[in-house]
Amino acid sequence: MAAEPETPEAGTGRVRLTFKPDGGEVRVPAGTTVFDGASWNGIAIDSTCGGHGTCRKCKVRITSGNVPIDTLDPRAFTPDQLNLGWRLACRALATHDLEIEVPPLETRPKAALVGVGRHVILRPAVQKRYLELDEPSLEDQASDLERVIGAVDDLDLRAELGAARGLGRTLRQADFKVTAVICDDVLIDVEPGDTSERRHAIAFDLGTTTVVATLLDLSTGQPLAVRSMLNRQQPFGADVISRVSATMMDPDALEMLQQRAHETMNQLATEVCEEAGLPPHEVYEIVVCGNVTMMQLALGIDPEPLGMSPFIITARRLPPSRAVDFGVRVHPRAPAAVFPALGAYVGGDIVAGMLATGLTRDRRIRLFIDVGTNSEIALGSSERVVATAAPAGPAFEAAQIRCGMRAAEGAIEGVAIKGDELTLEVIGDTAPVGMCGSGLVDAVAQLVSCGLLDHSGRFIPDEQAAQEHPELSKRLVAVGEERVFVLAWRGDDPANSVYLSQRDVRELQFAKASIATGWTILLKELGIGVEDIGQVLLAGSFGSYLSPASAVRIGLVPKMALPRIISAGNVAGEGAKMAALSLRERAAADAILDEVEYVELSGRADFNDLFMDQLGFPG
Amino acid sequence: MAAEPETPEAGTGRVRLTFKPDGGEVRVPAGTTVFDGASWNGIAIDSTCGGHGTCRKCKVRITSGNVPIDTLDPRAFTPDQLNLGWRLACRALATHDLEIEVPPLETRPKAALVGVGRHVILRPAVQKRYLELDEPSLEDQASDLERVIGAVDDLDLRAELGAARGLGRTLRQADFKVTAVICDDVLIDVEPGDTSERRHAIAFDLGTTTVVATLLDLSTGQPLAVRSMLNRQQPFGADVISRVSATMMDPDALEMLQQRAHETMNQLATEVCEEAGLPPHEVYEIVVCGNVTMMQLALGIDPEPLGMSPFIITARRLPPSRAVDFGVRVHPRAPAAVFPALGAYVGGDIVAGMLATGLTRDRRIRLFIDVGTNSEIALGSSERVVATAAPAGPAFEAAQIRCGMRAAEGAIEGVAIKGDELTLEVIGDTAPVGMCGSGLVDAVAQLVSCGLLDHSGRFIPDEQAAQEHPELSKRLVAVGEERVFVLAWRGDDPANSVYLSQRDVRELQFAKASIATGWTILLKELGIGVEDIGQVLLAGSFGSYLSPASAVRIGLVPKMALPRIISAGNVAGEGAKMAALSLRERAAADAILDEVEYVELSGRADFNDLFMDQLGFPG
Repeated sequence: MAAEPETPEAGTGRVRLTFKPDGGEVRVPAGTTVFDGASWNGIAIDSTCGGHGTCRKCKVRITSGNVPIDTLDPRAFTPDQLNLGWRLACRALATHDLEIEVPPLETRPKAALVGVGRHVILRPAVQKRYLELDEPSLEDQASDLERVIGAVDDLDLRAELGAARGLGRTLRQADFKVTAVICDDVLIDVEPGDTSERRHAIAFDLGTTTVVATLLDLSTGQPLAVRSMLNRQQPFGADVISRVSATMMDPDALEMLQQRAHETMNQLATEVCEEAGLPPHEVYEIVVCGNVTMMQLALGIDPEPLGMSPFIITARRLPPSRAVDFGVRVHPRAPAAVFPALGAYVGGDIVAGMLATGLTRDRRIRLFIDVGTNSEIALGSSERVVATAAPAGPAFEAAQIRCGMRAAEGAIEGVAIKGDELTLEVIGDTAPVGMCGSGLVDAVAQLVSCGLLDHSGRFIPDEQAAQEHPELSKRLVAVGEERVFVLAWRGDDPANSVYLSQRDVRELQFAKASIATGWTILLKELGIGVEDIGQVLLAGSFGSYLSPASAVRIGLVPKMALPRIISAGNVAGEGAKMAALSLRERAAADAILDEVEYVELSGRADFNDLFMDQLGFPG
Repeated sequence: MAAEPETPEAGTGRVRLTFKPDGGEVRVPAGTTVFDGASWNGIAIDSTCGGHGTCRKCKVRITSGNVPIDTLDPRAFTPDQLNLGWRLACRALATHDLEIEVPPLETRPKAALVGVGRHVILRPAVQKRYLELDEPSLEDQASDLERVIGAVDDLDLRAELGAARGLGRTLRQADFKVTAVICDDVLIDVEPGDTSERRHAIAFDLGTTTVVATLLDLSTGQPLAVRSMLNRQQPFGADVISRVSATMMDPDALEMLQQRAHETMNQLATEVCEEAGLPPHEVYEIVVCGNVTMMQLALGIDPEPLGMSPFIITARRLPPSRAVDFGVRVHPRAPAAVFPALGAYVGGDIVAGMLATGLTRDRRIRLFIDVGTNSEIALGSSERVVATAAPAGPAFEAAQIRCGMRAAEGAIEGVAIKGDELTLEVIGDTAPVGMCGSGLVDAVAQLVSCGLLDHSGRFIPDEQAAQEHPELSKRLVAVGEERVFVLAWRGDDPANSVYLSQRDVRELQFAKASIATGWTILLKELGIGVEDIGQVLLAGSFGSYLSPASAVRIGLVPKMALPRIISAGNVAGEGAKMAALSLRERAAADAILDEVEYVELSGRADFNDLFMDQLGFPG
């Protein structure tokens, strides 16, 4: 072990870990364990207990820097080895820069590529162990449960009551050759024979609009089936606010909303198992991410305080739950792993997104925006991340837009204006019947670009329009009192056509101004400027379809080179998959709660001024 | 702190703790915490967390002996205080003899007298805390759950999912003035207003024959109501073996037996709450003791391996369970505390009995016998305790006895012979219709004493009887082929009367020989003789009614002065009450598993010889 410990870099609270012989180098918050630091960065260290300090396999040698000897270390190493710097990585706290020698792995760990190009080492919470146990005798009267638990000596197992119920029979019918099914440190079942290769989990992205379920083979890390469907809570309102309101109006609504969520999730679970030809009881865990309202409704937790200032959530880290608490009928004792939430409007879906994008682990400063009725925004790098929620209103969900519709067949999803010519992209290549959010953003962006909308968001006067755009100006007509721009004629009456109204433009201005105010305030918090942002990640089922050019044109994202604006896809769902595949990623998600600072916009003195600045379109 | 540490007394593994200024002195197994050592012996040390190391109130000073500084100590004491020997009692392991100074208590702890004269300091697992919380604001957006848990800063609380469900509403309707309901370290509910004085538990003695429920006021330690009823599993057989057999014959029997146990327990819970005028949801915990078969059946755990050699139990310490797992509908999240079991036939009822009698804490050598179909026997003192189970057969339950009946109205429970005169004690002072176990033992003992039964257990020849007992010998008649002694005539036909048959005597001989062989083997294990036994405790609903003189006369207990043979009553039920009143007593019950050595009689080479020696009656 080398000389004097170095101090953490001034003011950052981060320390540098250099792994040998690979040479990988990562920066992690001071106090992170070496095991976590390695895992979060795709560097594999042997372990079977997942970092619980029981298997004593995660042996590393500290070659530079100083790590105190933990109480467990003397059980794993000789005094000589301790002097040479050998430590258990899961117990070694990195309080300053370290160089760490990692022995070659005994078995090559499996890994999967998930999230935004994230390499995840397979260490699921679900483990199976095939055991050939000694049969009991009058000389060896150990209880059945102790016999099983004692055979898994690298884990400090607890058992579920349900796992004890048929244990005696299973052991005897299987001649004491059984497979222990373990979730984290809990024995949830004992199966006859060797079933150790068969273990699965379902990752749920529980969205307000759409729910996605991915069935994962935990032995390989590969998805076996993916299904999505509309959240059956839709009849209670399109957005979270209307669903919270429903519970305030009707005392039975919470139970009904819970029931609808359960039906949705269980139907998806049934479908993915059917598609993969898998009995549902072979799914031993579910992972759920969703916004705070969706999580509380699904678990039957009163959401009322979410709906009004000061926007209080019931728990940032929810108490332990099971698949059955979500109405999902897989293995009866399958636990449910749930993402923690930063605040009422930065929920587990966003934490999952941050996990999938590696926002808190990357050295680049990145801006993450999940665009929706409530838009969540996070900004930062491995140094520091701040996050907030901007109440964008329903423009992007198209609910308040005259000809708005969901992104379904017949929706205009793209608009292009070249010269005096208008081109539409329509979902399903059919006759347009409305426009979805990305179509709205494109339409406004194109109309601003060609000058039919001025920078304040007003349609220019008819005469000016006729002069500058003789063809396009024919589409600028009136419906009732209001001026509208017809995107697609249906007959002669503009009222029957698909159009963008002046009020629609105003709705979008409010929404994008809200988001832009959010990231402006976050930039202020970090004391940096737009030019410091290395990448913008547009996320969510809506954000992913936005045209980066249009997003910049209307000022929804900061102006920068378009290749640096990335459609990150359904990052929440990717985060859920990562958590299903790796206990370490799950720990990283939990750590995000302490690493990310939540900035509340409501009641901020500078909000209104900044918001007014952002209402117009950039010049 | 004084000089050199002393070593434990050679070979005992026990250490002496002397408490000042009271001068109390106790001997405990080396490695016990000072806090436990004090609590088990009725010496109160301040604490609110029940020994979890979180409240830091259990401050004591080690004045002689050496206790290393625990990681928590520096948070509770200054370096000067540490040097003076101050330690947290819950973290101070006694590895050798210690003198300990206990500061005067800030509040006088409540205590209750339960068990066999045991003084129990009230420290129930169920705690309530009245909290007046700050209302949240945009500046203070702590989640509801963190607000509650943060206010209980002397405990390291976890929460149940169910406790989160209505939390938001409760806090706001009660203006953030609420009472936290805590079981051990789990928040199970939050109630509006101040309900801190209202906390209750039910202690169940789940017997094969009779089930007893005691409703306890945990604020005072006093019982509010006691009810008992026959176990509704009776139709499946009188004893544990027949109930286990039932589950082996009929695949539905386990579920039916579980259902019957639940009905029995829930009816008793309802009755005790009604009697005390208490809403059931104010019962926050249940404690259950019972033999292994009763516990496994009630929890739906396959009991088959209990019924055949090598007699394997599912778990000595069962996984955590709740009141609902026993079908008891009190507070929906009330946990169930369950006694651990030493083996298939030394179950939680016996552990509870050992707790109530303080068998492992008393310096005298005592013999504990729970007399029943399966008789459990324990022998020892605070030095060492050994235990076994003797399959006594059904004689005591009167099932295999010709005129046997349960101890109900009309049962002969006592028999006295003076000269030629026979006197009967009959339950209910009514005409006798049968005899219960204690009547059987009395009858045999009296007939042996007066000589009508010889020492081999045979009725003496008619002629000899007529000569020696002219009156009594008229009762010595034949029913069919068998000689019987009529206890109570009903008409002239002895077959219609209440009598003791030769075969009944044989049944009793087998039963008492089995028990006597049990304690003989335990005496051998400890290397002591009958003369070393200071006290005999007869326990169980049956043993408590046995006449000590008759028990000695037939050789069921060793011969000794009768005042040293104590009817200890329903010690299992008392043990369950103690566990409900005190977390420390519960820990003591758990420690019994490690302190008591189980001796398996089946398959022992010396069993048969010893058994034959015990078959006759003592001279």
